[in-house]
Amino acid sequence: MAIESPPAPPAPAPTKARGLEGVVALDSALCDIDGQKGELIYAGYDIRDLALETTFEEVAYLLWHGRLPNAGELSLLNEQLCAERMLPPMVMDLLVQTPEDANPMASLRTAVSMLALFDGEADDMSPEANLRKSIRLTARIPTIIAALDRVRKGKQPVAPRQKGSIAAEFLYMLNDEEPGEAAERTFDACLVLHAEHGLNASTFAGRVIGATLSDIYSAVTGAIGGLKGPLHGGANIEVMKMLLDIDREGSDPTEYIRERLKNKQRIMGFGHRVYKTLDPRAAILREMVEAVSEERGSRKWYDMSVAIMETMEKEKGLYPNVDFFSASVYYMLGIDTDLFTPIFAMSRITGWTAHLLEQWKDNRLIRPRAEYTGPRGLTVRSTRR
Amino acid sequence: MAIESPPAPPAPAPTKARGLEGVVALDSALCDIDGQKGELIYAGYDIRDLALETTFEEVAYLLWHGRLPNAGELSLLNEQLCAERMLPPMVMDLLVQTPEDANPMASLRTAVSMLALFDGEADDMSPEANLRKSIRLTARIPTIIAALDRVRKGKQPVAPRQKGSIAAEFLYMLNDEEPGEAAERTFDACLVLHAEHGLNASTFAGRVIGATLSDIYSAVTGAIGGLKGPLHGGANIEVMKMLLDIDREGSDPTEYIRERLKNKQRIMGFGHRVYKTLDPRAAILREMVEAVSEERGSRKWYDMSVAIMETMEKEKGLYPNVDFFSASVYYMLGIDTDLFTPIFAMSRITGWTAHLLEQWKDNRLIRPRAEYTGPRGLTVRSTRR
Repeated sequence: MAIESPPAPPAPAPTKARGLEGVVALDSALCDIDGQKGELIYAGYDIRDLALETTFEEVAYLLWHGRLPNAGELSLLNEQLCAERMLPPMVMDLLVQTPEDANPMASLRTAVSMLALFDGEADDMSPEANLRKSIRLTARIPTIIAALDRVRKGKQPVAPRQKGSIAAEFLYMLNDEEPGEAAERTFDACLVLHAEHGLNASTFAGRVIGATLSDIYSAVTGAIGGLKGPLHGGANIEVMKMLLDIDREGSDPTEYIRERLKNKQRIMGFGHRVYKTLDPRAAILREMVEAVSEERGSRKWYDMSVAIMETMEKEKGLYPNVDFFSASVYYMLGIDTDLFTPIFAMSRITGWTAHLLEQWKDNRLIRPRAEYTGPRGLTVRSTRR
Repeated sequence: MAIESPPAPPAPAPTKARGLEGVVALDSALCDIDGQKGELIYAGYDIRDLALETTFEEVAYLLWHGRLPNAGELSLLNEQLCAERMLPPMVMDLLVQTPEDANPMASLRTAVSMLALFDGEADDMSPEANLRKSIRLTARIPTIIAALDRVRKGKQPVAPRQKGSIAAEFLYMLNDEEPGEAAERTFDACLVLHAEHGLNASTFAGRVIGATLSDIYSAVTGAIGGLKGPLHGGANIEVMKMLLDIDREGSDPTEYIRERLKNKQRIMGFGHRVYKTLDPRAAILREMVEAVSEERGSRKWYDMSVAIMETMEKEKGLYPNVDFFSASVYYMLGIDTDLFTPIFAMSRITGWTAHLLEQWKDNRLIRPRAEYTGPRGLTVRSTRR
């Protein structure tokens, strides 16, 4: 006799959570954020430890494999990354032909989507192929960003070489000159700090796409589109505009902020949905801004930033987030403000791909519900009468 | 004296819902699905009523505006759609140069992303501009799909004309001949049936991206990437492969299904996370398959489909979903199986854009949490010792 399954229990009342705030959508071993304490770890390691003692390539390995590489593993990864930097000719053609006023994030999104057309294993969903594609994407995004910036300025793109770190080679391709050691080290630490941050909107969008068992290019293209949004990746651009504005006007930063607050204007780079205290990445970046400022013989941006930070804490009880100090670091490295978000993508590609590899280990479709609030019972015929 | 705000209440325990099943993420006035009763409405109208009595263009208007158009409004929309069909030359170049074995969904995703580079109002977030871009995307996606199919077959793309319905003009551009009235009517109804379906994975991905205030091209590009996944848009391809397999082998459909079930093989096109009974779209499509079959003088695909359906209901208690019958309709219209998912996108673009317009009316970031399951307390130095 067949064993009959018991009748299904009645469906529980649905949980309603606008914006999904506070809802746990999945388990992840990649990143933990303690917003109350201001702590951030990647796969067990404190972010400060990683920023000060590892390279971006080591962090990429950590996120993809769940542990830091040994010397041999790191050397192999570096070789693979170096070997994958060149773009297919048609992707380079796209960057050359793109109108110069195009949004760099729209160009990056299109170029990354196009990479799939020239990747014979684009739709190979084996873990090995997906890891290879993660490495390939991490290697090629810096080449895309450097090329699109040079082309729009009327300069020749600089071909990538099969050597050097991602940080160093990106700055080289961007400026056609070797970066100094301090610039490379600072930029590398910035890449480490932006690599991963749990289920932010771009990572979540990528996992929703990946959970349909769509390919890694589809998921990453979607994530880039999410990062493009001003509520997500665009905040440090606004921070830099504000700093440049204060500098141009010769304003006192404290007075400038008070005036804006009085006029109910939003100050970008402060507060965070997760952190209720100082974002630990902001603390590390603050030290970097100070160090780079001193190296360059002008504490201007540092002093201005600290004055703004102190005013915001006093007036609003808000602390700076990662965007606040990354703005002036990138600016001092000679990077155009509208490249800040593409550079965020160049780092976060490691977190995005790590989340996808994790998603596919134990996949499940991600599909919440909407509550219907529209009309009912309409008929076409009666409407037309 | 300033009024002090009361201390914040302690955060409620997080809801945990893997895959977000049963969680209501947002309100929507676009679509209601009663999975128990097998009912589907778009903005108040029953899907059967819409499929039998309205055109796809009227449904697009209904989704964008929340009501059906009057004659003047419909005529204006038709004019706008006709005027927007041409592709920018560089997008057409992309389709011409794409390797012929590229996944058509990857080509569509790239072409749609590229459209943004040539749209001067790509980043204009006003409701008026977003509606214009919704019309533009709905007009251009059919041109992209028809062109990519012709190019990969070594044929010249057929330029769109400024006349006719989306359904008719798509079939014309695909085959370089006017479709018959029955083919147009059937295909138009298929577009109506696939236009909208609540927070499915592609629509949800689009809203997550849009909720960062990223632009409509970013959100739609992400949605296309989600639809590309075999767990979402790809099911009717598998259905058609099965039907062709049965036909080629000359198998008895009932025996074929029983054999596959015995071997624990999955039968695509049956069951649905939302519908616990017959998907109402499947019922309408079943009638269409029968009508088209009779018109073409062969009930082969219809009889085969009904036999499979009856076997699945008897053996597994599962009902066909929208993918089961759309497969044979498209096949009988002469459409290649790997275009089924792009055609799904050509219809769902109306639902995607309607969801985005709705999202932006009252925007809120969509950001759930992950529960951390990894290690803690590791230090880089001790790992290296």
